[in-house]
Amino acid sequence: MAQTIGVIGGGQLARMMVPPAIELGLEIKVLGETEGSSARPAVTQVGDYRDREAVLEFAKTVDVITFDHEHVPTDILNKLIAAGHAVHPGPGALRFAQDKLDMRRRLTELGAPIPEWTSAASVEDIDAFIREHGGEAVVKTPRGGYDGKGVRVVREGAEAADWFTDFPELLVEEKVPFTRELAQLIARRPSGASAQWTLAETVQVRGVCAEVIAPAPGASAETIDRAAEIAHLIAEGLEVTGVLAVEMFETADGRLLVNELAMRPHNSGHWTQEGALTSQFEQHLRAVLDLPLGDPSMVAPHAVMVNILGGPQGEDITARFPEAMREQPAVKIHTYGKSARPGRKVGHVNAIGQELESTVVAARAAAAIFESEALA
Amino acid sequence: MAQTIGVIGGGQLARMMVPPAIELGLEIKVLGETEGSSARPAVTQVGDYRDREAVLEFAKTVDVITFDHEHVPTDILNKLIAAGHAVHPGPGALRFAQDKLDMRRRLTELGAPIPEWTSAASVEDIDAFIREHGGEAVVKTPRGGYDGKGVRVVREGAEAADWFTDFPELLVEEKVPFTRELAQLIARRPSGASAQWTLAETVQVRGVCAEVIAPAPGASAETIDRAAEIAHLIAEGLEVTGVLAVEMFETADGRLLVNELAMRPHNSGHWTQEGALTSQFEQHLRAVLDLPLGDPSMVAPHAVMVNILGGPQGEDITARFPEAMREQPAVKIHTYGKSARPGRKVGHVNAIGQELESTVVAARAAAAIFESEALA
Repeated sequence: MAQTIGVIGGGQLARMMVPPAIELGLEIKVLGETEGSSARPAVTQVGDYRDREAVLEFAKTVDVITFDHEHVPTDILNKLIAAGHAVHPGPGALRFAQDKLDMRRRLTELGAPIPEWTSAASVEDIDAFIREHGGEAVVKTPRGGYDGKGVRVVREGAEAADWFTDFPELLVEEKVPFTRELAQLIARRPSGASAQWTLAETVQVRGVCAEVIAPAPGASAETIDRAAEIAHLIAEGLEVTGVLAVEMFETADGRLLVNELAMRPHNSGHWTQEGALTSQFEQHLRAVLDLPLGDPSMVAPHAVMVNILGGPQGEDITARFPEAMREQPAVKIHTYGKSARPGRKVGHVNAIGQELESTVVAARAAAAIFESEALA
Repeated sequence: MAQTIGVIGGGQLARMMVPPAIELGLEIKVLGETEGSSARPAVTQVGDYRDREAVLEFAKTVDVITFDHEHVPTDILNKLIAAGHAVHPGPGALRFAQDKLDMRRRLTELGAPIPEWTSAASVEDIDAFIREHGGEAVVKTPRGGYDGKGVRVVREGAEAADWFTDFPELLVEEKVPFTRELAQLIARRPSGASAQWTLAETVQVRGVCAEVIAPAPGASAETIDRAAEIAHLIAEGLEVTGVLAVEMFETADGRLLVNELAMRPHNSGHWTQEGALTSQFEQHLRAVLDLPLGDPSMVAPHAVMVNILGGPQGEDITARFPEAMREQPAVKIHTYGKSARPGRKVGHVNAIGQELESTVVAARAAAAIFESEALA
């Protein structure tokens, strides 16, 4: 033990790994993109995650490598492995988070339930898929998408024609008539043991996660079991190490279809910071160190997370602390040390409670204070 | 807002302020005694808290000064105030935490219930007090004591004669026939608002806090109200800002007598990290920034903290993580990045639960794993 954890990427996910590392008494270092990155309390090196030399230099200062994001190129990951570094999740798993087409192929092999899909090499391929699937489809770039970017709902292939400039193939999926979205979080150790949190409902606004409610209200025992089975199947099948978020659609007839995967702590699990005995951030550290996993049980009947999107424009977000703390003393405020701008995730609030309605109301009210018009 | 908090002293209390600062999105800096101090994740300057120039230099880099301990000399605190720095708690309050005789005089003026006491300028003064108080007394050095140091139970003044070399006066107190010890934690803002956590029972072993149970088992409503009144009286009377811990004796006839005060987060409040909606560390930050205080309610019916005293000798404490995490997955482990040695506080564990007995058992079992004999 006494291993130093190294996180590649200096975003808020890396930042939120720092508190549990300090509480456990572990050393954590971050390779951040800039001096002022969100994870700056633990940034020990500034550099580009696509710069092989920078990443290899960073790796020498730590015992195990993990990630704030899935974008580190596979050849660099393989170099790390070849140089003897422990990397979790490893490149064999991460490639499926990096490439949506590879992921669909692998999930199909595993028998995981996913929307109907095809890979399209041309506008005509997209049009053919649309004709077979009710007049519209979702087109996604295989790589580089996040928070609604790289995703379009189209009625004809021409609407995605520009993307063929950068990608030889695009992913085309049926537009699933879902009733809501769910997220199942699981953590898995290299030695195979895993632990899952409560199934949560996620609410997306314009492709960005806005709100998460745990447990997912009204979920049937069958849905809960099925979601856990799917997450376990994928974590095992892809040999994921660390936290895996499985985002799913729930349909009117009660089916679950896997939408996206994230192989790291994920926005859909921020509620675990105050809502679970073991947060996703602590669990991720335990998992990548191959330590026994913590109890993921909830500490209260309900937990609600609401993102702070945008924040008070032109103002330091902490300027809203007096009002938010006075109005909602039981809500926990998390901000990321990032400057506010439209649509940017700059923080979130968590509320826990005995009763769903009041918990939702408190969390939304607190978040709204951070998003209201600039103070006079 | 966007104020930077500066903490003087690099011990575990400063360390444990860092996670809530990062989570809130606040900047925190620590003036640590050494490069390797417990609070090293936030140490920005290494220096001695008794070095006026070092402290004043540090103060220029932050917006509000607070403390890991109460030992910064009053003349340095007054210099900080004179130079326009915000200092919480201020020297007017801290002097009562620094000098036990000053504190007894002030608590007597306030009418707070305390053990019978006197200031002794000679061995004869101690003997006179002992004759009037049942044949024994507790002698304490006015300054510099902690964790049982600077405290002796004596049957004659000669047993404390050596202390008169360093101190012109000693504090002499009746040896209270207490049935148990309690701790009431309160946080107070400069603007006067305060919030109190649940009354807790503390268990001391050889003068060192070993275990804390919240709420204090079997405490009557009268005791709970009285403890809160006393803490409020003292926080107001001494104009404390930040967290104040009031350690009390409970007697067989149900009286509460104030034993010691700490004007900072305190070992008796570590349970709040997982056991309360707002931990003492977050609340201290809010209080010293004069932000609205968080809800101090418990998140579960019972919370138990057990200190890790000593730790596995000659071994990194994290070497015990695999066993402790496997055996007690619901217990939260906190270690301080300090090397293990006999009697030293090197960490603690927190457990929360619906039922007292199993919560105590889990916390004790986890702590015991860190204190058992060296691994083969």
